[in-house]
Amino acid sequence: MKVLFTFEITNDQKMRLENKFRDVTFQYNKKGDTTDVESVEILVTYSSEVDSSLLERAKKLKWIMTASAGVEKMPLLEIAERNITLTNVRGIHKTPMAESVLAHILALRRSLPSIYSSKESKEWSRPDDSTELMGSTALILGPGSIGSEIGRLLQAFGVKTIGCNRSGRISESMDKTIVFRDLMLELPKADYVISVLPSTPETRGLLTREHFSAMKETAVFMNFGRGDLFNETFLINALKNNEIGQAVLDVFEVEPLPLENELWTLENCVISPHVSGLSSKYVERALIIFEKNLELWIESNVNLENLINLFDGY
Amino acid sequence: MKVLFTFEITNDQKMRLENKFRDVTFQYNKKGDTTDVESVEILVTYSSEVDSSLLERAKKLKWIMTASAGVEKMPLLEIAERNITLTNVRGIHKTPMAESVLAHILALRRSLPSIYSSKESKEWSRPDDSTELMGSTALILGPGSIGSEIGRLLQAFGVKTIGCNRSGRISESMDKTIVFRDLMLELPKADYVISVLPSTPETRGLLTREHFSAMKETAVFMNFGRGDLFNETFLINALKNNEIGQAVLDVFEVEPLPLENELWTLENCVISPHVSGLSSKYVERALIIFEKNLELWIESNVNLENLINLFDGY
Repeated sequence: MKVLFTFEITNDQKMRLENKFRDVTFQYNKKGDTTDVESVEILVTYSSEVDSSLLERAKKLKWIMTASAGVEKMPLLEIAERNITLTNVRGIHKTPMAESVLAHILALRRSLPSIYSSKESKEWSRPDDSTELMGSTALILGPGSIGSEIGRLLQAFGVKTIGCNRSGRISESMDKTIVFRDLMLELPKADYVISVLPSTPETRGLLTREHFSAMKETAVFMNFGRGDLFNETFLINALKNNEIGQAVLDVFEVEPLPLENELWTLENCVISPHVSGLSSKYVERALIIFEKNLELWIESNVNLENLINLFDGY
Repeated sequence: MKVLFTFEITNDQKMRLENKFRDVTFQYNKKGDTTDVESVEILVTYSSEVDSSLLERAKKLKWIMTASAGVEKMPLLEIAERNITLTNVRGIHKTPMAESVLAHILALRRSLPSIYSSKESKEWSRPDDSTELMGSTALILGPGSIGSEIGRLLQAFGVKTIGCNRSGRISESMDKTIVFRDLMLELPKADYVISVLPSTPETRGLLTREHFSAMKETAVFMNFGRGDLFNETFLINALKNNEIGQAVLDVFEVEPLPLENELWTLENCVISPHVSGLSSKYVERALIIFEKNLELWIESNVNLENLINLFDGY
């Protein structure tokens, strides 16, 4: 059995894998290098590297482990037709993303942007907009593993959490959970509207102009899911007309965000260049998931963790 | 009985007081205006406004409520000699200060300074230093009400907390508590060293050059207590020689921080101009404490909350 990595891991990590799986042959290519994909049964890669032409070459491929969370840009139907198993690293973004969301919210409430810029100009200037997170309300779109972790941390700060999902099924660390169609009723109550929704047929374009109008004038809107959740023009208008207070965006309709995009110029918009999931511990965690699944694969090929339903797309 | 406020409160807050305490006369001066202090029994003010000359004029004064936390610059001996009761607002800084500490730590770990500055220059530039709070260790000097609140929040992020106080008495939300003299043993373990110590004879100059040398090279040192905890030269040298990774300072030996102070120019030092306690909810909370104490005062003059021991200075 042969496994190909198309990204680099440390020598310690290689040794650990090779000692644990002595009957498996591992090949480690540089990032993006798919040399020898023809000969492998298992490919460990990032979602963006898998396309039709790669699949065509990879005749023996049985399992793709993507070290990404999103799979929406992968050729899912072809993968399904070829009967290739696809797993991702759902769950490993939980900690860095939840910490990023809390970092951004707290930074805004505790006036860090103004503190940082006063330092640059050596000004002893006390901000006049400092307030607290405690006692506020957050609405979390997509209270799955990442959303619930955000909810758990917000609750520790005394924030009321409202989850919003497709089914309305109660989710962890949410004071209550609502369904998508009740969003308009709850948006006016939220100080923070935070999306961590994946891109699926049901979430694309989910937020309309009316949703932004329904938010508080002081609301902080945060998109840490996918950039196709709404038409960016709606948000730009809401920010320009002060229909909402602030946006913090980690994802965009087009990434990298084009230089001419107006979001760059809006004072009340933080541009986080799709980095909320980054962490020095990323590969380490991805390998933990991979090792567990490789054990299961060798045993039986079934019951892998983080299995993607190729028709639902998550 | 007459009460003088030397700072402004809202009309709603005035009405609330006057309705609740119908036998008390309230006078509200502008901030810093001590007109009529001669005639009052109770003064509600900030610590910095109370000096010997004020005390001299305030012949009838029996109780000073300071809406500050620190009392170290007040003429405590004169207040004691005059047998004047002194109370402060210990506890009301807990939430904003703990949120500020977490904001700064998370901002650094999640690369917010670089995200903010890339926005300014419209650069889609992914930071390479993002890491997580989870799994790290924090040492908290002064695990009282503020320190314990910081500890509670850090623990929610999966951080190990070590409290350090005079007595070594177990304190809330600390995985363990050590005494000051054992500091040198624990400093090398801490990723975050956070002081919220007040200024007292025992804390002045508590941290020496050796303490900074004992910290990790990557340590983040945060002073949110008082600026006389150490000689600033020791910290400046530690930062310049990369003996520690970063400092975040809310307090300084001299405030406002003089323009010529080298701390302004160090890249690895955040200057927070003594604002970590600021909050839009500040006066509201101070009044809750004042109202409780005014009830007690009218009843019996004793058992006031947040009573300052004039000889210990806190």
